[in-house]
Amino acid sequence: MRHDHIISAKQLSRADIEAVLDHAADIAADPAAYADRHADTLLGMLFFEPSTRTKMSFTTAMKRLGGDIVDMGSVESSSVKKGESLADTVRVVEGYADALVLRHPMEGSAKMASEFVDVPLVNAGDGAGQHPTQTLLDLYTIRENAGFDDLTIGIMGDLKYGRTVHSLAHALTNVDAHQHFISPESLQLPRSVRYDLHQEGAEVREHTALEEILPELDVLYVTRIQRERFPDESEYRAVAGQYQIDTETLEAAKDDLTVMHPLPRVDEIAHDVDDTDYATYFEQAHNGVPVRMALLDLLLEAHQ
Amino acid sequence: MRHDHIISAKQLSRADIEAVLDHAADIAADPAAYADRHADTLLGMLFFEPSTRTKMSFTTAMKRLGGDIVDMGSVESSSVKKGESLADTVRVVEGYADALVLRHPMEGSAKMASEFVDVPLVNAGDGAGQHPTQTLLDLYTIRENAGFDDLTIGIMGDLKYGRTVHSLAHALTNVDAHQHFISPESLQLPRSVRYDLHQEGAEVREHTALEEILPELDVLYVTRIQRERFPDESEYRAVAGQYQIDTETLEAAKDDLTVMHPLPRVDEIAHDVDDTDYATYFEQAHNGVPVRMALLDLLLEAHQ
Amino acid sequence: MRHDHIISAKQLSRADIEAVLDHAADIAADPAAYADRHADTLLGMLFFEPSTRTKMSFTTAMKRLGGDIVDMGSVESSSVKKGESLADTVRVVEGYADALVLRHPMEGSAKMASEFVDVPLVNAGDGAGQHPTQTLLDLYTIRENAGFDDLTIGIMGDLKYGRTVHSLAHALTNVDAHQHFISPESLQLPRSVRYDLHQEGAEVREHTALEEILPELDVLYVTRIQRERFPDESEYRAVAGQYQIDTETLEAAKDDLTVMHPLPRVDEIAHDVDDTDYATYFEQAHNGVPVRMALLDLLLEAHQ
Repeated sequence: MRHDHIISAKQLSRADIEAVLDHAADIAADPAAYADRHADTLLGMLFFEPSTRTKMSFTTAMKRLGGDIVDMGSVESSSVKKGESLADTVRVVEGYADALVLRHPMEGSAKMASEFVDVPLVNAGDGAGQHPTQTLLDLYTIRENAGFDDLTIGIMGDLKYGRTVHSLAHALTNVDAHQHFISPESLQLPRSVRYDLHQEGAEVREHTALEEILPELDVLYVTRIQRERFPDESEYRAVAGQYQIDTETLEAAKDDLTVMHPLPRVDEIAHDVDDTDYATYFEQAHNGVPVRMALLDLLLEAHQ
Repeated sequence: MRHDHIISAKQLSRADIEAVLDHAADIAADPAAYADRHADTLLGMLFFEPSTRTKMSFTTAMKRLGGDIVDMGSVESSSVKKGESLADTVRVVEGYADALVLRHPMEGSAKMASEFVDVPLVNAGDGAGQHPTQTLLDLYTIRENAGFDDLTIGIMGDLKYGRTVHSLAHALTNVDAHQHFISPESLQLPRSVRYDLHQEGAEVREHTALEEILPELDVLYVTRIQRERFPDESEYRAVAGQYQIDTETLEAAKDDLTVMHPLPRVDEIAHDVDDTDYATYFEQAHNGVPVRMALLDLLLEAHQ
Repeated sequence: MRHDHIISAKQLSRADIEAVLDHAADIAADPAAYADRHADTLLGMLFFEPSTRTKMSFTTAMKRLGGDIVDMGSVESSSVKKGESLADTVRVVEGYADALVLRHPMEGSAKMASEFVDVPLVNAGDGAGQHPTQTLLDLYTIRENAGFDDLTIGIMGDLKYGRTVHSLAHALTNVDAHQHFISPESLQLPRSVRYDLHQEGAEVREHTALEEILPELDVLYVTRIQRERFPDESEYRAVAGQYQIDTETLEAAKDDLTVMHPLPRVDEIAHDVDDTDYATYFEQAHNGVPVRMALLDLLLEAHQ
């Protein structure tokens, strides 16, 4: 893999993706072997909006590689409040760190910021844009649990606004998965995403009910349907209730179905699923560490 | 000592307590010997309410053992705001860390959370519930300065609402201390605590004036009387003023009296006491480091 | 250099300053040689007001020396809110750390705090008072780019309220610089600062237009003119516009002019200057790391 910055999962070829996942698997198999790999490395953390989970996961990844972080802290306490531009902020912080992680509410901000710095920059989410490390950890979890060969995956919930879902769908096309999208009509894939997927040669089918397709699935990826998307509470409840799963729902599934969720969940997956072999969402969250360790290691090695 | 989680001081036998305090004393005597003891260990910090002092002390303890922390940051910036349950949060963070420290406003939360994780969890305060490491550092400070043999201790101030005080009282019963409680009538020990202490065989006496008992004390543990407990300012001032100490008050005390306070203080202890040999409250705060180092070391060793 | 605490640039002799800058230059030339120099050292970070840049820079400096930090976090989450005095806070945190960095809104607070602790304390800004490490990194940047011999420097912008400027002016007097101050009349140097500079034997001239002096300058130090200083927007715009520079402005300058700015900038320096050889403000920010490494190293070595 040879990239200076990781801005979007789309920039990664299938070979790039396999390289990251293979390296992540090696790391997960023997993390102690990597404990001093980047002992004097500082990772600059620029989180312009809160994202505890992603921040903790990157922090853990860097520290598990022997390095450390330098954190900008919250925007409220930063120079941004004094009117500093993103370009200036990243150029200053570049002087403190050997690589940067950027989370920013504005789509395209990671790409723009990367043009001002010489150290590797990883996009940790830019508004409605990309969040490539989430996609990589999703792919890693899928590959470890179901494999990419002849993979049939269902993606359910809010497919309209979910950045996670759009990124994942593009990447799954890359590995020739059979993709099923399950959602209420009002939250179906945006036309533009559907169009792009078709252009890329994706095999895509859409459903409004999980039961139509559940028995065929190797992986069911559940996302949250947000209350704010609906004009009133009763409409939300009526719709959301149809896209919640519990152990009863899963009786119709294959025995080795893998259930994933990007978390946090609210009530899309009942707690009785947690103790079944289907439940892979906590493992999925934990996989963020070896995947981000792998990505940071590859970027830092390539940059030296 | 063999515990998976440290939820309450009550779970610790006298032998457990002595083991922690002995180990803390060893560490305090030669901290450099422990500087690399847990070099690749990450401690997950889950503070659902602010507590700077406790957080800094645990952070220092982990770093003085050669390890590092992964911090959730403030609740405002976390997944909790999106409606995530505590059980989900700890199961995710368990994937990042080798042990967890939890501070949460809800009584019983630490016990509940501990049931969802496999790594050791230490309760750093759960609302009106327990705060076992505060109790341990108090005991350490008492043992180092006055010893447990034939110990006479006075605990003064807000005995009604003070979690610190209730925990300490139970632990002191364990070491057969003669306990004197000094407070205004409106802030006396709750009936339930007094009842429990009697059941445990504690030797307890209550006073409304410090002068009644001061000359007999080996240790005087002062706590803050909070303004909010009183209907009006004048009543507060009248009461609080009687439970403040200065060098003049202490003329009636033994020469080797140890004055403690969990800090922060406001005006319960006059600043002229700071320069006397009585003042042990800053040392007490500092003792949190070796005590928490000892506890983390014992937990991590037992967990391996 | 032999100081217990660094409170003000004024306490440093020319020899002290040269010692810090020489050591910083050594570190900048071979940072890897210092990567484990203070491996078990913890730096206590007490920021009573936000200052991302300074905090990141000190954090980086300590970590590049192999050490780590213990951070009090924001005042909102600290014991300060419960009414704790600064003297008590520093005496507690002294028990966690091997040195302290203090930022506080109250002038004189760093001096006061330093009297209560035995570990080295560095003032990272005390209100309208001092910010000695900013002055040192400014001097380092000037020395590296223009040298101190026969130095002619222009300082432009808000000279009335700018703490940075006053500190720098005193230090420049120490190295016999020819100092030119360029500002609107309403934002000229305060009488007291001008008086002090004259007492110290400074060579000072004041201007209202940059063009009067620009061709003679080796260094142009630009500071921000704050909107809040003006009664209305239009007056602000009229004045501020005269103290903004771009590549056109700089055509009248020497080829090897060094343009500095303490950052963050808003629009005092046009972005087209960034790509010229004049632009030294990002380098200046980055210089904070070796300068603070040098200062911490000297303090810690002297304290042992």
